[in-house]
Amino acid sequence: MPPSSASTPPPEKVKVAVFGSGRMGTIRSQLLYANPKMELVGIVDTASTNNENPAQFLASSLETEAYSSLSDLVVNNTSNQLDGIVCCTPTHTHASVVQEALELETTRGMFVEKPVDESASKIKSLFEHVKKDVSRNFQLCCGFQRRFDPSYQDLLETVRSGAIGKPLNINIFFGDHPVPDLEFLKEGGGIFMDLSAHDVDFVLQVMGQNQETGITGADIVESVFASGTSSVPELDEIGVHDNATMTMKFQSGSVATIFMSRSASYGYDQRCEIFGTEGLCQVENIKETSVVLSNKDGIHQSKYLHSFPQRFEKAFGIEMDIFADVLLGQHAWPITEDDCIRVQKIADAAQESCRTGQLVHL
Amino acid sequence: MPPSSASTPPPEKVKVAVFGSGRMGTIRSQLLYANPKMELVGIVDTASTNNENPAQFLASSLETEAYSSLSDLVVNNTSNQLDGIVCCTPTHTHASVVQEALELETTRGMFVEKPVDESASKIKSLFEHVKKDVSRNFQLCCGFQRRFDPSYQDLLETVRSGAIGKPLNINIFFGDHPVPDLEFLKEGGGIFMDLSAHDVDFVLQVMGQNQETGITGADIVESVFASGTSSVPELDEIGVHDNATMTMKFQSGSVATIFMSRSASYGYDQRCEIFGTEGLCQVENIKETSVVLSNKDGIHQSKYLHSFPQRFEKAFGIEMDIFADVLLGQHAWPITEDDCIRVQKIADAAQESCRTGQLVHL
Amino acid sequence: MPPSSASTPPPEKVKVAVFGSGRMGTIRSQLLYANPKMELVGIVDTASTNNENPAQFLASSLETEAYSSLSDLVVNNTSNQLDGIVCCTPTHTHASVVQEALELETTRGMFVEKPVDESASKIKSLFEHVKKDVSRNFQLCCGFQRRFDPSYQDLLETVRSGAIGKPLNINIFFGDHPVPDLEFLKEGGGIFMDLSAHDVDFVLQVMGQNQETGITGADIVESVFASGTSSVPELDEIGVHDNATMTMKFQSGSVATIFMSRSASYGYDQRCEIFGTEGLCQVENIKETSVVLSNKDGIHQSKYLHSFPQRFEKAFGIEMDIFADVLLGQHAWPITEDDCIRVQKIADAAQESCRTGQLVHL
Amino acid sequence: MPPSSASTPPPEKVKVAVFGSGRMGTIRSQLLYANPKMELVGIVDTASTNNENPAQFLASSLETEAYSSLSDLVVNNTSNQLDGIVCCTPTHTHASVVQEALELETTRGMFVEKPVDESASKIKSLFEHVKKDVSRNFQLCCGFQRRFDPSYQDLLETVRSGAIGKPLNINIFFGDHPVPDLEFLKEGGGIFMDLSAHDVDFVLQVMGQNQETGITGADIVESVFASGTSSVPELDEIGVHDNATMTMKFQSGSVATIFMSRSASYGYDQRCEIFGTEGLCQVENIKETSVVLSNKDGIHQSKYLHSFPQRFEKAFGIEMDIFADVLLGQHAWPITEDDCIRVQKIADAAQESCRTGQLVHL
Repeated sequence: MPPSSASTPPPEKVKVAVFGSGRMGTIRSQLLYANPKMELVGIVDTASTNNENPAQFLASSLETEAYSSLSDLVVNNTSNQLDGIVCCTPTHTHASVVQEALELETTRGMFVEKPVDESASKIKSLFEHVKKDVSRNFQLCCGFQRRFDPSYQDLLETVRSGAIGKPLNINIFFGDHPVPDLEFLKEGGGIFMDLSAHDVDFVLQVMGQNQETGITGADIVESVFASGTSSVPELDEIGVHDNATMTMKFQSGSVATIFMSRSASYGYDQRCEIFGTEGLCQVENIKETSVVLSNKDGIHQSKYLHSFPQRFEKAFGIEMDIFADVLLGQHAWPITEDDCIRVQKIADAAQESCRTGQLVHL
Repeated sequence: MPPSSASTPPPEKVKVAVFGSGRMGTIRSQLLYANPKMELVGIVDTASTNNENPAQFLASSLETEAYSSLSDLVVNNTSNQLDGIVCCTPTHTHASVVQEALELETTRGMFVEKPVDESASKIKSLFEHVKKDVSRNFQLCCGFQRRFDPSYQDLLETVRSGAIGKPLNINIFFGDHPVPDLEFLKEGGGIFMDLSAHDVDFVLQVMGQNQETGITGADIVESVFASGTSSVPELDEIGVHDNATMTMKFQSGSVATIFMSRSASYGYDQRCEIFGTEGLCQVENIKETSVVLSNKDGIHQSKYLHSFPQRFEKAFGIEMDIFADVLLGQHAWPITEDDCIRVQKIADAAQESCRTGQLVHL
Repeated sequence: MPPSSASTPPPEKVKVAVFGSGRMGTIRSQLLYANPKMELVGIVDTASTNNENPAQFLASSLETEAYSSLSDLVVNNTSNQLDGIVCCTPTHTHASVVQEALELETTRGMFVEKPVDESASKIKSLFEHVKKDVSRNFQLCCGFQRRFDPSYQDLLETVRSGAIGKPLNINIFFGDHPVPDLEFLKEGGGIFMDLSAHDVDFVLQVMGQNQETGITGADIVESVFASGTSSVPELDEIGVHDNATMTMKFQSGSVATIFMSRSASYGYDQRCEIFGTEGLCQVENIKETSVVLSNKDGIHQSKYLHSFPQRFEKAFGIEMDIFADVLLGQHAWPITEDDCIRVQKIADAAQESCRTGQLVHL
Repeated sequence: MPPSSASTPPPEKVKVAVFGSGRMGTIRSQLLYANPKMELVGIVDTASTNNENPAQFLASSLETEAYSSLSDLVVNNTSNQLDGIVCCTPTHTHASVVQEALELETTRGMFVEKPVDESASKIKSLFEHVKKDVSRNFQLCCGFQRRFDPSYQDLLETVRSGAIGKPLNINIFFGDHPVPDLEFLKEGGGIFMDLSAHDVDFVLQVMGQNQETGITGADIVESVFASGTSSVPELDEIGVHDNATMTMKFQSGSVATIFMSRSASYGYDQRCEIFGTEGLCQVENIKETSVVLSNKDGIHQSKYLHSFPQRFEKAFGIEMDIFADVLLGQHAWPITEDDCIRVQKIADAAQESCRTGQLVHL
């Protein structure tokens, strides 16, 4: 993340703690460390008393400390003035982290990985809880990475500019990589819950909720149809799908299809195309290198980027930068409560359709 | 179509007449003219008595004659020994052309543009009719162009080789070009009838009917869901859709989606991708030229090929060449009665689903 | 090759004989056969008395006859009215074929594969010979296939339109395919003679001779530098290069580089790029199929088109079609005597530079 | 730059000062700030006493201080223990910065932007100077960014693996972006000095100096030919070229061509292709986004990456990371004195050839 250019005064810094030291916690901590707008004041992990835990290593590599709780951090950290939290813990713990954050007087906001909570109604409750103290104006900021990705945002602006006329159809392909091990799949959440949220949010941005322009309309999802398969018997036996398709039909008759797979062998495959009355606009994949090898067997290129940290590296950095701006009072967070709830309802409907084999009307 | 290489003896020639002098009739006639295996003995068009009609022009440009009926051709053509017919007339006339063909003693087969007839039951009747005289072994050869297209056949062979493991999902995109005028759309057939047949046949080849290998399975379509939109009010009022999506769900839970549009502004857009447990295989589009212009506005390439005659030029030539081989007794036609009926049933189901907004179970 | 559209009267036909039944003779004969503007009246090959020779097979596959000489054809062919000749024999025989053609009263022109003759001075002599009888206006039409290729012509028009500003530099890559056997290479002509002509002609069209527009200027080649290598000792010993680079420096300081190889293992590699003050325009390669396979080893596509007959299939057809128009008096042939001589001089200079290791000034 | 993974102990940190606060100084400072292996102890700029100068802004944005000289830094910086210097000042100042660095007892190395000094002989002298005190083992580390770029390194490894057989020819295209203003061009160094170094170094790695494998040989550059043009009269008058081509001929007859332009309008165009006896391997460009817009005018993509900071973002980070390792005694710097001198000699030869219009033999 580049700091402000050398010709402007140095930015005010906000003090931020990260909750969680797993994959996303590590990515977020490194971005905070490298961004001059933010000071990483500590990494909170409930297991952090153990001298050898990942949180300790992560913290010391980034010149900060690991703590076992937020109060531990506040008591021991000399700065004592926490502005915000970045929450990368499991979904079912989000509500209690919000509660801890609210108990401090100085916090102005919390960034939380999607989904905000485990169901549409819990999401609604949590947002209502943080909004209760109106004067405080605490910001609960859910992350949908496509909102900050240069390619997806270019796609959205292109559509809104009218360059493809009226959008009629969206096709999305999401093949995750690397292939997870069987244990992860067995214990993981439903495929629609885990994989569809970012794309559903993007579809709704294009088709469903933007009323500012004539181009992206106020179309409403009427029904959802979904189906999934299990690639190995072990998953089939416990009803876990690792490949699935969902179809969102809008009132206009327009359709968005999303194919999801846990296991694209050829890199992280994340594509989206929007067809309109005047043209087509697509986000394509990015390859690991720009090398092309041509030999007697054909023309060969590298796999696609390894996984989401590589593909959304820029987006994650921009996301943290804008979160800093939110804490500095310079921006509103672009993702609303309604956005979060809407996405969750559609993921729920897909899950149900897949289970019953029937259309689910919304 | 290249003739046999110079080191083999000249091929036996078959005498063939073309019915119809519209767009497909012209393409087929030119291919017959250029193929040394076939002699184009005439073009039959019911309007051909008029001196200035298109059939006359087409015939004289290809050094043959236009006739108003098959009997007219047989009486006046000195060769008098017709081996086969290529039928490019409207669907509702196919059955009567078959009847005319059967009344000649010498004909051994007829190639007919898809669909063979207007409904699954009529297709079944027509095939039964031609099979009645077992000893004659008259071949009714329906054209599905992807069966003869090098790229689609390469895709199919790649899947059958196991290169992508077990196929799990198919996404198809078909944007027709150029955009037809409104009158054509108003009078045209339903979008599922007109546009889906080639792709449905290809999907069934991959997923549904091939039992020779473990790779492409014996999966059966369980249900179809479809939806369409009308891009202008005039079409909406008369219930004509110019954009539509259909979703075929297989018993295994696998899904094939087909998006169809009458009006891709950027050239003929005909893509197919098959995702499997070990990889992804796609047929991509072909551009009009291989020129790339890079300037301050970006990187620019030409539109895709103009339309189906350009995109399937090779396929149409190979198709006619194999039809010649069928007439010469060297090949069986690769598309069976069952293939034709199955495709029609699924197109019918899509039409019904689109009309009712409900899933249609097969 | 499409005939005229069905709405125009059938074209007048010209009677043409092909000399030679090798690779190019076969391609040209097939194109003449398939083009309704031309009647292929025979294939002349000095070895054609032998019953089993390639000319006999080619001729009978295309419903015509093989002859051992032009007089043999004229005597035995009932039509007796030859309009033109397509000459695909070795370069050293071109002059005598021209002489034979001139001895017939009816011939109006001859198409000849490049180069017209073995040296710049012989080319000049031959053109002067055919121009002697001014009233006859016999057309000697040399083939440079890029003049008829849609992609190269699109590139040229793009440059002339000013889309890349003033052209400054040209890079050309020509990798021939398939790899020829060693015997062919040992006996083949010099690599600059054999491989550079089409590209040098194209470079001169862009940079050197067109004075109609300000865009493509009147720049003159000042010096040539060339170097070659032999990939195996057998070739090195006899001084035959199978890979080479030539650099044409223009008076303005602009440079065009041409890399040539006899043996691209990955298909026919024929690229050209022109860099100008406002942008870049390129002709890229074309792949055999449009299939993309993505797997754990990367992203894979088919090789490029097999060889020149596939890559320039359209160009060869258009070339023959325009030659028919020349014989019909409707067009002048677009390639002049000067074009042919200029190209030969530059190829000669490259050969000399490669031999001496020195710059050759023109 | 990712820190070491969380499961390893936190890395030892080295103290590094940056000289210069221009474009490269800013990039290097930000990378040092974000890399947990290094502590940025100050930015040295001779103009830094001015309160509003860029060095001050840069320093404060990165939580460090600006100094007017190295002694100023050492006196005022409490840490007082400088391990290394990153030198991003103009080429003619490099020798004096090296001298300042050597006068401190603690410094173990200095990274310097290419070229190390203004001529091959000065480069040789400077390396000899730093090597005089053998026991000290001070590392003078010149940056050639392709050595650290994943795509160029993948290309090199592919060639060394034998995947394209024996390399025969290299074509390089370097179009700089954005177009600089006229003043910059007038005052800038010669185009061969400024633009060719990275590519010449890469060519020599592939063709010229690596004797470890049979694949990349010990070929030696025999002669250089170069030519340039001035796109506007103002540059022509003062003999400044903004577009140029250089051709390096090796003893084997193999050739490497490098085209250079100051002004590619369509983004940073940096390509390299190596043709060998068994295939072709290329580094292609990278686009700003992965968006594709298809409309009635064709298929459109974004420009290429804006400039070298974007294109070589990863390479610069890896380069600084390896420099940290060199200071930590874990690595030798991969670029040797010989590498630097060889590159300079070839750039000099190109400059001379361009001036004289003659081949320059080495």
